[in-house]
Amino acid sequence: MQHTRRLAGCAAAALLILSAAPPAAQTPRGSQPAITSPEVRPDRRVTFRVAAPDATKVELRTPGDIPGSLERGVPMPLTKNAQGVWEVTVGPLPAGAYRYAFAVDGLTVVDSRNPATSPTNLTVYSLVVVPGSEFFDTRAVPHGAVASVHYPSTTLGGVRRMHVYTPPGYEAGRDRYPVLYLLHGTGDADQSWSTVGRAGFILDNLVASHSAKPMLVVMPAGHVNGAGAALGAPASGAASQDPDPFLGDFVTDLMPYVEKHYRVMTDRPNRAIAGLSMGGGQALNIALPHLDRFAYLGVFSSGVPANVADAWERQHLAELDDAAAKRGLKLLWFGTGKDDFVMDTTRTTLALMKKHGFSPVFVESEGGHNWMNWRDYLSLFAPQLFR
Amino acid sequence: MQHTRRLAGCAAAALLILSAAPPAAQTPRGSQPAITSPEVRPDRRVTFRVAAPDATKVELRTPGDIPGSLERGVPMPLTKNAQGVWEVTVGPLPAGAYRYAFAVDGLTVVDSRNPATSPTNLTVYSLVVVPGSEFFDTRAVPHGAVASVHYPSTTLGGVRRMHVYTPPGYEAGRDRYPVLYLLHGTGDADQSWSTVGRAGFILDNLVASHSAKPMLVVMPAGHVNGAGAALGAPASGAASQDPDPFLGDFVTDLMPYVEKHYRVMTDRPNRAIAGLSMGGGQALNIALPHLDRFAYLGVFSSGVPANVADAWERQHLAELDDAAAKRGLKLLWFGTGKDDFVMDTTRTTLALMKKHGFSPVFVESEGGHNWMNWRDYLSLFAPQLFR
Repeated sequence: MQHTRRLAGCAAAALLILSAAPPAAQTPRGSQPAITSPEVRPDRRVTFRVAAPDATKVELRTPGDIPGSLERGVPMPLTKNAQGVWEVTVGPLPAGAYRYAFAVDGLTVVDSRNPATSPTNLTVYSLVVVPGSEFFDTRAVPHGAVASVHYPSTTLGGVRRMHVYTPPGYEAGRDRYPVLYLLHGTGDADQSWSTVGRAGFILDNLVASHSAKPMLVVMPAGHVNGAGAALGAPASGAASQDPDPFLGDFVTDLMPYVEKHYRVMTDRPNRAIAGLSMGGGQALNIALPHLDRFAYLGVFSSGVPANVADAWERQHLAELDDAAAKRGLKLLWFGTGKDDFVMDTTRTTLALMKKHGFSPVFVESEGGHNWMNWRDYLSLFAPQLFR
Repeated sequence: MQHTRRLAGCAAAALLILSAAPPAAQTPRGSQPAITSPEVRPDRRVTFRVAAPDATKVELRTPGDIPGSLERGVPMPLTKNAQGVWEVTVGPLPAGAYRYAFAVDGLTVVDSRNPATSPTNLTVYSLVVVPGSEFFDTRAVPHGAVASVHYPSTTLGGVRRMHVYTPPGYEAGRDRYPVLYLLHGTGDADQSWSTVGRAGFILDNLVASHSAKPMLVVMPAGHVNGAGAALGAPASGAASQDPDPFLGDFVTDLMPYVEKHYRVMTDRPNRAIAGLSMGGGQALNIALPHLDRFAYLGVFSSGVPANVADAWERQHLAELDDAAAKRGLKLLWFGTGKDDFVMDTTRTTLALMKKHGFSPVFVESEGGHNWMNWRDYLSLFAPQLFR
């Protein structure tokens, strides 16, 4: 029995693994050589490798997160060595979490040497974390927990999934906490804020440095089909007449579930909502008609596009001019990068909100429509909550 | 702006997504056609598809979980249609969760149309769930939560990861619960019991039918390098003189962390440990020297191999003959499949334990060394705990 050979005749080694997987399970990937990928170097350069001896062209693909030559998914070629291993070194990169994949003769594949992934609603990327950040590194501080949670949806039918961050001390404690609902973008799923977004680590670090109050962060699945969608139910849900069935699920099912199943404070000053891109629009559309329930609203790289602004304004007129509800809104926060294609959308929305007596805060950052900014925005937004 | 075109001139649609991802982020995978894979059919046949028009050979690879012709990783060929999409239909399969990948001209890749994955310590598989099981389907019952938890390891240095299942009602409640520590195998990582193993759903269903007591299930990372290993620390840890550094981490760091940070009962009758394959060996090696702390011990498809049994027996002689500790062991449970290559190992261990006055229970199941059995074993073992 091959799996025990190393142990034979060595009493101390008997403490070792007693029974391993069969040969077939140990090498399911066939003849791939034992290469390391990604290799994150101390100077923050990253080497990506893929063993594809028979391929004629291999490229590194990213969804726009890696800055410089890789911005906006511009592919970067890998070169083949004598052993048939393709390789490229990029950087030094800013500290960050980066999604990537390889295109091997046109076939897009994740890095089979890297167990870390960041799924979206429709596909999956490999994930590499380049450390060096004060605010999102995995540091030696008390850590919260990020849970995968399944809840019943009367709106969409079946069982849906969300992710929930609980702060350090929650699981053994008795305190109640405020809640931030944090929504993802089109190219994401309910775990994106916890993989590429590193929301849990950001909160851990902010809480450890007393920069933010301990809070729950609830990360729903904003798509109504796909990874976090209703399981065991029709993919598009029962509420297909509603333009965005997720909004009904959020208000009717998800938020009440959280408030029943977690020790959270349920008054307005202890409830916040924010989202990026698609999720920023959803946050606006959830909060406006229920402004009496949210004291903090964050819109990351998003807003109401100019060509629908008039219609949106008419639709939400009563809420936009509800002076009583407006008074309890402690923060209306926007963040958009100078190079972001939604800048006009954000500016349109800022003007619209000001016209109706709101006092939005706007952070115009460097950069574009990517996770570098969304992690930053969370680290700027969260410290202002629940004060 | 392409992303808002669908909304123009339509007031109702203004409720829709306000700002989507840029084109580059929406179609990072280039020219792949919109195919569905995997497609789980009502009769439990599953169709796998991959778009690879230029490939000459595509196979389905599994680590031995899919029964029949796919047992033990025997590859199954896909055939190409006129559109360059390769396809194979397998089954009807038993209800289950199956890991798989494609080999495209020898390059092993996950299914890019499937966001669901099951990472191991060294690589990542796609995951398909074939429903139809009373005990591990995602059913309309109260659900617990499965959290990713980071804890400091004085033994290995740095921060390590585990997964923790908390039963329905935990997060808002005040009760204390018993704990099952549940260890994975060589070809796994700390999330494997929650992905391919479906441990959380199994416990949800057992608790809902009053077949098992509500409990925490703590799922450590049994490898000391790789996905769940110490982060920011030397890959092999500081305790490399120890034959299996994980054992020290478990006893010194992980278990005390759980007992401090969760509302768990810490007396012996409320502590259980079990594991599969490598994890079964680790469970034996953790429990034997600390038998006064565990009332239940489960060994799934594992044991002490015959060629090291004498050395192991000598090493643990004092513990094997500790009558006082033995008295409080309420269950010593073994499960191994008739076709499993570790059957001799299990039988050797049963004989050894009986020789020293233990009364092991042995379930000799059908099948081999795979997750079909390990899910079954958990569903047989958990109901016997904490009675």
